[in-house]
Amino acid sequence: MRRLVPVPLTAEGFAPFGTVIERPAEPGGRLINGGTSRRHDLLADLGVQAEGGHPLLTLFHAQARPFPLRLGELERHRLGSQTFVPLAGARCVIVVAAADAPLHAEALQAFQVRGDQGFVLAPGTWHHALLAIDEGDFVVIERGADTVDCDEQALDTPVELNLG
Amino acid sequence: MRRLVPVPLTAEGFAPFGTVIERPAEPGGRLINGGTSRRHDLLADLGVQAEGGHPLLTLFHAQARPFPLRLGELERHRLGSQTFVPLAGARCVIVVAAADAPLHAEALQAFQVRGDQGFVLAPGTWHHALLAIDEGDFVVIERGADTVDCDEQALDTPVELNLG
Repeated sequence: MRRLVPVPLTAEGFAPFGTVIERPAEPGGRLINGGTSRRHDLLADLGVQAEGGHPLLTLFHAQARPFPLRLGELERHRLGSQTFVPLAGARCVIVVAAADAPLHAEALQAFQVRGDQGFVLAPGTWHHALLAIDEGDFVVIERGADTVDCDEQALDTPVELNLG
Repeated sequence: MRRLVPVPLTAEGFAPFGTVIERPAEPGGRLINGGTSRRHDLLADLGVQAEGGHPLLTLFHAQARPFPLRLGELERHRLGSQTFVPLAGARCVIVVAAADAPLHAEALQAFQVRGDQGFVLAPGTWHHALLAIDEGDFVVIERGADTVDCDEQALDTPVELNLG
């Protein structure tokens, strides 16, 4: 059995899997609204429009998961991204594997997401279902369409996720 | 001069202007992720795809505004919605007027948004620029496109916004 411990979510570490939603460390951006806000463009296109898709807005109220946790399967949505933003500071763990590689337990990476961070899973990124550390609400924006776009695959080796 | 005091943001009160992002008071929704999350679909389509538009992800770091505040002008985006979600509990006030009516000071309504709420401005809804009560970050999803879609209009009568 593989044992997996999440590392803190950072833009650099998560880049192969998607986009981190947080205020950039560098000032950057540009002033708007009469200088009262600074705007940082994070992702030019969420990418949910393939094959007639559109951005669908939903809210997940998640229970806190018990850790350590045995991971059994992951899923991916090949036609659209999936965006998660905690609505009131709930933390979570995101377990991912690269979109363009076969799914093996050894390929998994885990990131711990603070309550003031969100993330976008790029289309095709393998990911485990939401693993909330705190009970709470997560705003989710994903591709809505007439057909389901979800591949599920069991792991070849069991993986135990521990918060460390 | 008109004086305006925000009322608490509720789905019912805000319905003419857009969608409130919060966990519905009624249980509803459906269980997902092996029963560990309850999913509430809030809006089937954000509606940002008109005329080649796509969903753009940005982050506003907003200063806290001083109140009372004199409001001078509002704006609208006719081709797409605009979604605001506080990333770490910052509160704000949203000042709006109906999309399909001429903009007059008397038509304005103001809502106070808790730190565990977000909202979607429906396409065309007149709104004031973000008015943060607390300094903080707001995740914004709006229509990205090659051309700018923003009408600005000065109010016919000055309006003073007070938190009450």
